[in-house]
Amino acid sequence: MTSFTFRRSLTIAWGDCDPAGIVFNPRFFEMFDASSWQMFEAALGVKRQDINARYGIVGIALVDARANFMKPARFGDTVEIVSRVKEFRRSSFEVEHLLSVGGELAVEGNETRVWAARRADDPDHIRAAAIPDEVIKKFG
Amino acid sequence: MTSFTFRRSLTIAWGDCDPAGIVFNPRFFEMFDASSWQMFEAALGVKRQDINARYGIVGIALVDARANFMKPARFGDTVEIVSRVKEFRRSSFEVEHLLSVGGELAVEGNETRVWAARRADDPDHIRAAAIPDEVIKKFG
Amino acid sequence: MTSFTFRRSLTIAWGDCDPAGIVFNPRFFEMFDASSWQMFEAALGVKRQDINARYGIVGIALVDARANFMKPARFGDTVEIVSRVKEFRRSSFEVEHLLSVGGELAVEGNETRVWAARRADDPDHIRAAAIPDEVIKKFG
Amino acid sequence: MTSFTFRRSLTIAWGDCDPAGIVFNPRFFEMFDASSWQMFEAALGVKRQDINARYGIVGIALVDARANFMKPARFGDTVEIVSRVKEFRRSSFEVEHLLSVGGELAVEGNETRVWAARRADDPDHIRAAAIPDEVIKKFG
Repeated sequence: MTSFTFRRSLTIAWGDCDPAGIVFNPRFFEMFDASSWQMFEAALGVKRQDINARYGIVGIALVDARANFMKPARFGDTVEIVSRVKEFRRSSFEVEHLLSVGGELAVEGNETRVWAARRADDPDHIRAAAIPDEVIKKFG
Repeated sequence: MTSFTFRRSLTIAWGDCDPAGIVFNPRFFEMFDASSWQMFEAALGVKRQDINARYGIVGIALVDARANFMKPARFGDTVEIVSRVKEFRRSSFEVEHLLSVGGELAVEGNETRVWAARRADDPDHIRAAAIPDEVIKKFG
Repeated sequence: MTSFTFRRSLTIAWGDCDPAGIVFNPRFFEMFDASSWQMFEAALGVKRQDINARYGIVGIALVDARANFMKPARFGDTVEIVSRVKEFRRSSFEVEHLLSVGGELAVEGNETRVWAARRADDPDHIRAAAIPDEVIKKFG
Repeated sequence: MTSFTFRRSLTIAWGDCDPAGIVFNPRFFEMFDASSWQMFEAALGVKRQDINARYGIVGIALVDARANFMKPARFGDTVEIVSRVKEFRRSSFEVEHLLSVGGELAVEGNETRVWAARRADDPDHIRAAAIPDEVIKKFG
């Protein structure tokens, strides 16, 4: 477990919610994706839109996503999302997102992402590249 | 033109953008919808999720929406949205949203909304109700 | 594993894709949610919007969702989604969605859903209700 | 008014709808965008993902969008969208989308789009290019 933690709050919009009056579940995956980018920006000190160019990658590609929905969130609720990298491996890493409503854990999300670069011999294809030590160090 | 103005900033997410690398236009209408709710919360001093119950309505229903897209917004751009009610009529009103990127106007949005209530004689149907004076006064 | 299988095809829209030119991952969860509703409509012979009223439930609530993204899907790609209920338990069930592009498996999704009803003693709260035998039988 | 008309039907998904149980308005703009691409594919006989390369453009960029919401559409409703180009000008054109529910007009949408190409002297900037006669002829 790395020590860097990224927190943000947001308020649930009308358009995030479904006819049951609660957040339509895919919206949580959108929130987690945005939190991952913001966490990298905060940890690396590089604007999110400059990360790919800075490190010569095409992205922090999502290969697996899971979420456990424990409590609903509703229009107007302020939610807090706490994100961190649980583990860095050679070329992939695990991100955990804990979303709470009124201080109670509501959704637990997990993402597996890869440090994705173009293949030198075939730029149309993507390979999992080694994550630079300097990146890992920034997460503590 | 009322004098109350609501401003907010947000940063464009990866998932807001299309393969051209710019915000997919329908996302701007989502931003404007959220701004309208937040403007009413700020002007009325009533939480957005309590507005309907507080005024006995079913919503500030959108009946017409338009947007003029002048400049693109991209992943990581911080945009500012300035919203206000241009005109209150008996039971409808016009909202203007000016979205700028880097200080330059990028999207101009306009919404026509109605103060929508259930019909007393037929609760399954909606009617345009008179907007209370106290609501209009809060917008100056 | 039940024997009922639901298949549908759809073509990836411009607005489903991100700046990398591939489907933004949360959109796959939207596709899987829609497939689950359509599968129930097809298996039960009850229109999706009438299922809740027909069985006295508030929905087939999603409590866990996972997806493994193996290959990307791009604007204009026609994808096929094959869905089935892997297992019915007393009040919950597992749905599997296999999405393929050009005949190759691209995304494997899994959902855990509960047969959700209002509590008789407290209609504001939801409980996991027993799934009727007639429902399970319709899935074979 | 051109004579080519493009029709498609779709069924409203749970995730298209908001807590009022009706389609969240920005979703209609997504539907119209998808219809515009499909209409061009059908009229030109070129796959939607190949249109840009085939004509040397970067897209049929949306510069103005409007919609009038007359009747709501609900989860499970089958809607029909009839689209056509109302007018071709030198480098821009007007698209009309009429969406009906149960045979009654529910939403009328209008888009102004430009035939957008890169500037030869500055490929980072986009210019409105002349629409080829062969394109206009295909719409009748």
